[in-house]
Amino acid sequence: MNDSGGASESGAIRIADVIRKKRDGHELSRAEIAHLVDGYTRGQIPDYQVSAWLMAALLRGLTRAETAALTDSMLHSGKVLDLSEFAAAKVDKHSTGGVGDKTSLVLAPLAAAAGVIVPMISGRGLGHTGGTLDKLESIPGFRVDLSIERFREVLRLCGCAMIGQTAEIAPADRKFYALRDVTGTVESPFLICASIMSKKLAEGIDGLVLDVKTGSGAFMKTEKEAAFLAELMVETGQRMGKKMVALITNMNQPLGLRVGNALEVQECIKILLGSGPEDLRELCLELGAWMLHLGGRADTIAQGRQLAAKLIDSGQALEKFRQMVELQGGDPRAIDDPAQLPDSRYTLEFVSAKTGYVGAIRCEDIGTASVILGGGREKKEDSIDPAVGIALHKKIGDKVEAGEPLCRIHYNSESRAKEAKRLLERSYEIVETPPAPEPLVLRIIPGQTP
Amino acid sequence: MNDSGGASESGAIRIADVIRKKRDGHELSRAEIAHLVDGYTRGQIPDYQVSAWLMAALLRGLTRAETAALTDSMLHSGKVLDLSEFAAAKVDKHSTGGVGDKTSLVLAPLAAAAGVIVPMISGRGLGHTGGTLDKLESIPGFRVDLSIERFREVLRLCGCAMIGQTAEIAPADRKFYALRDVTGTVESPFLICASIMSKKLAEGIDGLVLDVKTGSGAFMKTEKEAAFLAELMVETGQRMGKKMVALITNMNQPLGLRVGNALEVQECIKILLGSGPEDLRELCLELGAWMLHLGGRADTIAQGRQLAAKLIDSGQALEKFRQMVELQGGDPRAIDDPAQLPDSRYTLEFVSAKTGYVGAIRCEDIGTASVILGGGREKKEDSIDPAVGIALHKKIGDKVEAGEPLCRIHYNSESRAKEAKRLLERSYEIVETPPAPEPLVLRIIPGQTP
Repeated sequence: MNDSGGASESGAIRIADVIRKKRDGHELSRAEIAHLVDGYTRGQIPDYQVSAWLMAALLRGLTRAETAALTDSMLHSGKVLDLSEFAAAKVDKHSTGGVGDKTSLVLAPLAAAAGVIVPMISGRGLGHTGGTLDKLESIPGFRVDLSIERFREVLRLCGCAMIGQTAEIAPADRKFYALRDVTGTVESPFLICASIMSKKLAEGIDGLVLDVKTGSGAFMKTEKEAAFLAELMVETGQRMGKKMVALITNMNQPLGLRVGNALEVQECIKILLGSGPEDLRELCLELGAWMLHLGGRADTIAQGRQLAAKLIDSGQALEKFRQMVELQGGDPRAIDDPAQLPDSRYTLEFVSAKTGYVGAIRCEDIGTASVILGGGREKKEDSIDPAVGIALHKKIGDKVEAGEPLCRIHYNSESRAKEAKRLLERSYEIVETPPAPEPLVLRIIPGQTP
Repeated sequence: MNDSGGASESGAIRIADVIRKKRDGHELSRAEIAHLVDGYTRGQIPDYQVSAWLMAALLRGLTRAETAALTDSMLHSGKVLDLSEFAAAKVDKHSTGGVGDKTSLVLAPLAAAAGVIVPMISGRGLGHTGGTLDKLESIPGFRVDLSIERFREVLRLCGCAMIGQTAEIAPADRKFYALRDVTGTVESPFLICASIMSKKLAEGIDGLVLDVKTGSGAFMKTEKEAAFLAELMVETGQRMGKKMVALITNMNQPLGLRVGNALEVQECIKILLGSGPEDLRELCLELGAWMLHLGGRADTIAQGRQLAAKLIDSGQALEKFRQMVELQGGDPRAIDDPAQLPDSRYTLEFVSAKTGYVGAIRCEDIGTASVILGGGREKKEDSIDPAVGIALHKKIGDKVEAGEPLCRIHYNSESRAKEAKRLLERSYEIVETPPAPEPLVLRIIPGQTP
């Protein structure tokens, strides 16, 4: 370790001073934050100084200006896509992660069907929540690792494309995130905001719809925490000239009835066919309405909902999905005939021990059960089994008889199924009177009209 | 980085959980703290996790029990001396560091002259404050790097010995300190307490007198901060069964009239001869009285003061000093004839521009001026010039005429002297009326009688 107190120096800024300044609760300048991010990304500032700064930032908090500066430095640590070749508005949607949360697969083609450009760069499953890339890869042949050039080409040909993060996009975020993961500095709204927004803004978008989840299956357990993060992200995006909105949505139970990769693709196809579970359709219409509104295709949210419903019911959104799947190497027959999607060898009905109503679902447990079955990763190196998962028969408020199935386990390994079943045994709460229904969208935080 | 969130695991304790627990303000168990300290010392927990923990500990604070557990784990990271062969009480004194703070050189032989065993392990200069080892090494031939066996032998032969930290003593503290130094985590009373106390308790002592400095030349600028640290150290020592006392003492101006290594040795010899500056003698008598009291040689502090004065005035303390110097390889002629100590080639009187009274001294500047002259280290690798320093003619409250010398610069390099002079120009404040005198000992925090 460097005795001078600054392991890296550039110009007048010393990293040790930057750490102490944040530690003491003072606001850092844009230049100080840029020094930290650039120095770390280039390997000139060591992990141990950045982790001390991260802990100070978590405990002291960041101002709005600091959060924007951090986002901006991370954003510019790599390539920022220039999509100015597209005359239409570029709009994306991002969710903070939930169980059965599959709206991206519906929304990207839906908005593209209305002429909005959707350059969606997504992630993989994290903890108990699923990942868009893992879901897409359950479609035989589907490639998420397109080059930026091919990504652009797919956007030109069909208006939407869905890929994984590339090495060129916000490399600072990858380095910061890996360090946060092992230093107890993940749970800071300021750092979460900078991480999400830097990646999303690198997509070269004009507008962003945020789906901030709260409840037993979300990372943010309370509406208050979710609203704080949502406001922070909306303000950060607006400071960078983007059209923004955040919806705080309910994650006290899985969204829709399917949890697991191929199972969720199947359910999305149902939605695109105009059927599927009501809550999932409802959220797709609401988020879709906002995407169409920010993308200039609907003057009001009501008009946006109408247009979104029309794009689904006319089959245009499904057609767009089929087109994108084909352009990204996927087998379009899997869209027309979901029996072509991977299927588990075995299923097992999990039945209720009691008669009554579903009072609550420990949503995180459902997600974890799916991970245990092989639908997610417990370690980064684990491979995904696209076929496994949980199909829910009952959701909160539903009546159930003793002996009646609550959900079905799709599995390929007996021992994993047993383990998942143990989790399910504690995850359904059966009560005598049905609970009061909860709203799906708890709050909308619109950005100010620029 | 390890994806599981815990780069090191032993038994059920995961370091990532320990970081998060402290981050969230909860109290860590003794086992969790031991896991952190042992894992880090053995190289099983990486710097970046420990620095995040250190920042969380600094900002959240530690409880008394956590501070004691941290001290204990650091203490037992290395060898703890067993001095049970000595029937007499083993007592040490530790100062948090000041300018011109040279009492150790007087106190170790003084207490030993009364039959107390003083196994003193000291440090080098840090920032603007001097270090006991650097001062001792200005005595020609004096060795501070004795083996533990030779240290024990010197204690047997003369009752006191003064050496530097060895690799065997509290290795955890060296590793933690190096990391704290570059991660903005030095300034935590809890971490300072654990660092000091782990090293001191490794000496195998029964009692410890703490001199906690406060004022413009100290690390703790306010009496409140100093008292907080003092109480923490007293309680931590008591929890480990040690007799403790802390004196909060004034460091708004240098202690005594000499700052610089050989200059300070000279001044100590004056004190041991029964003369020397009043403030330095006064503090030596007060701290000495407490050492004699904790060491069982004086029932009251008043008796301790009397005995301390007698040991000085009878020449017994000086004789003990001469004996220790000789046993540690030093030339005893330097004690009898201070002209044998290193002397600078040049001196320069720094005169007052104004007539009036010395109202304040920027004590830290005086220390820094001595460092600049070569009396301390700006970087760890720097070598020390034992001959240089500052000799003060005037202290706070003294009358001074325009053109009259305030202090004398002892130097060997013209350019360094110029730089030191620039610092001195701002460090004396001359006022029209003499300021109210400040007490030397601000507060005494005695440990409870066990």
